Amino acid sequence: MALDEFDRIATYFAPLSAGHAGAFGLRDDAAVVDVSAGQQLVVTTDALVENVHYLPDDPPLDIACKALRCNLSDLAAMGATPRGFTFAMALSSIRDITENDGRISSFSNGLRRDIEKWDCPLIGGDSVTSPGPEMLSVTAFGELPIGTALRRNGAQPGDRIFVSGSIGDAALGLRLRRDDVGHGLSQQAAAFLIKRFHLPQPRVALGGGLRGVASACLDISDGLLQDLRHICAASGVGANIHMAALPVSAAARSALKDAMMTEIGLLSGGDDYELLFTAPASAVGAVTAAGAAANTKITDIGEITEEPTVQVLDQNHKAVEITSWGYRHA
Amino acid sequence: MALDEFDRIATYFAPLSAGHAGAFGLRDDAAVVDVSAGQQLVVTTDALVENVHYLPDDPPLDIACKALRCNLSDLAAMGATPRGFTFAMALSSIRDITENDGRISSFSNGLRRDIEKWDCPLIGGDSVTSPGPEMLSVTAFGELPIGTALRRNGAQPGDRIFVSGSIGDAALGLRLRRDDVGHGLSQQAAAFLIKRFHLPQPRVALGGGLRGVASACLDISDGLLQDLRHICAASGVGANIHMAALPVSAAARSALKDAMMTEIGLLSGGDDYELLFTAPASAVGAVTAAGAAANTKITDIGEITEEPTVQVLDQNHKAVEITSWGYRHA
Repeated sequence: MALDEFDRIATYFAPLSAGHAGAFGLRDDAAVVDVSAGQQLVVTTDALVENVHYLPDDPPLDIACKALRCNLSDLAAMGATPRGFTFAMALSSIRDITENDGRISSFSNGLRRDIEKWDCPLIGGDSVTSPGPEMLSVTAFGELPIGTALRRNGAQPGDRIFVSGSIGDAALGLRLRRDDVGHGLSQQAAAFLIKRFHLPQPRVALGGGLRGVASACLDISDGLLQDLRHICAASGVGANIHMAALPVSAAARSALKDAMMTEIGLLSGGDDYELLFTAPASAVGAVTAAGAAANTKITDIGEITEEPTVQVLDQNHKAVEITSWGYRHA
Repeated sequence: MALDEFDRIATYFAPLSAGHAGAFGLRDDAAVVDVSAGQQLVVTTDALVENVHYLPDDPPLDIACKALRCNLSDLAAMGATPRGFTFAMALSSIRDITENDGRISSFSNGLRRDIEKWDCPLIGGDSVTSPGPEMLSVTAFGELPIGTALRRNGAQPGDRIFVSGSIGDAALGLRLRRDDVGHGLSQQAAAFLIKRFHLPQPRVALGGGLRGVASACLDISDGLLQDLRHICAASGVGANIHMAALPVSAAARSALKDAMMTEIGLLSGGDDYELLFTAPASAVGAVTAAGAAANTKITDIGEITEEPTVQVLDQNHKAVEITSWGYRHA
């Protein structure tokens, strides 16, 4: 059955707002949000376009979640606790109505799971139709104590550089989905890498734990090297990264063996959505504790330098030639 | 010169965030927003798709403003004072790079004007490229005293029904832009109607003045009749509208004479972005005062009834047959 905008909102999206009374069941012109005394709101927005940020045959259950999770990852990078989000969706009229209704149902089911997981209700949105590719845009809201947001500009020479999880998996997953590569990989390894591309794991608990601990923080979306340069530029410093220290998943290691990508490729591939952050040497214990509390692996990968260049060093401490700094969005 | 995402943000968008220190010059992962004690935030989101909500050759200076203003109109409908907005933009790769840079420059110039007018800075955004039509998505934030948001569900039998400005101009403007009609109109009248389609006038000052006065309020985007039905459904009431009382601009009157549209067409055409609201008879003086303070024309067009139907009455108080209730978004 073809649903119009009002039916769709009532059927698929209004139930996702149940956790936020101020969403008024998505029936009013806007939602209201209360902010507790001493807290401030954190706001971020990210848009995904079909064929650019995801593929037409990616699992629909994951697509809307990816849009939400990219934004949760930005909140995590600021150290904020998620509070809610708005969801604007342009369905493609290239698909027929039945197919679009099926996709909406999957988007809604995926979002329900993530809303529960992060206690982050839907508070508003818009649903339109486009003659072109599908597009999803999320604006997410978080909360943190006033003045405690993690910024990019606080890295100091001597600070250690840390990264959560593992690096390069999503870029490999995208290659596996797009190109005829990876024939030497086990099915399991390929599935792991593709999942890492489809469904980022925003480090929400870790981000919250890094408030007052990290001197600078961001989430890696353009590739580790590119995003590290953002921290360095904002802080007026440089960095040395030790190639041998990089956290590389077992699946990514087998992809390296299969010559799917170079090690530098792992550092310049986008879509990791891991946290990259710095902390003074005196805070290493607190960093370790934050990682343990969030049940998230953290790896020390290098140090901030006074000299304002970013270098990757091999095991002989020789600078590796960097052929690509990362993905610069056109 | 081709600009990438980082250059574009720095050149065109960072200056638009100057009024909000918590936007961090758009250089961090997210923005922070403080909410004063006793206030709550109001959040709304609206997306516009090229060829659906605006035309490829509409003036670029107006397009981004329209996206912002649709959202400001939602804030006005809640009675909120604008505080800031995020802007997600998918440029079309169908246009060449020089043309897109020109559009971004126009978007930015238009937004600057509106940011100053409503004291509503840009606080974040995203810029992506789409292989399909251009798309803009805005999420806007406003503030109001806790618990004072104007809702749709408070209309009571006996309440008067009011509308701001004039009705049907934008629907006529769209017809003039799309179809070969309106040959009997003066150039001036045609230009007025087209401008009303290109650039809504959000009734921000009026919305703020209606807090504590209006019993229900929304902004007309789907057509007066359709949106009035939303108020009636939410409030469990009905309405009688008096055709002769409707505020119709001189330009729209000449379009009616030219048979471009019926009077009922004016009531079911979308994109008015006028406020439609109800208030008890005892508050008519306060409504008049709010209109005068906001320098906005307000017209009493009918009354809320117990019988839960919406009727349009002619000058003999006979119900007019309604052939179309308004625009239902596919």
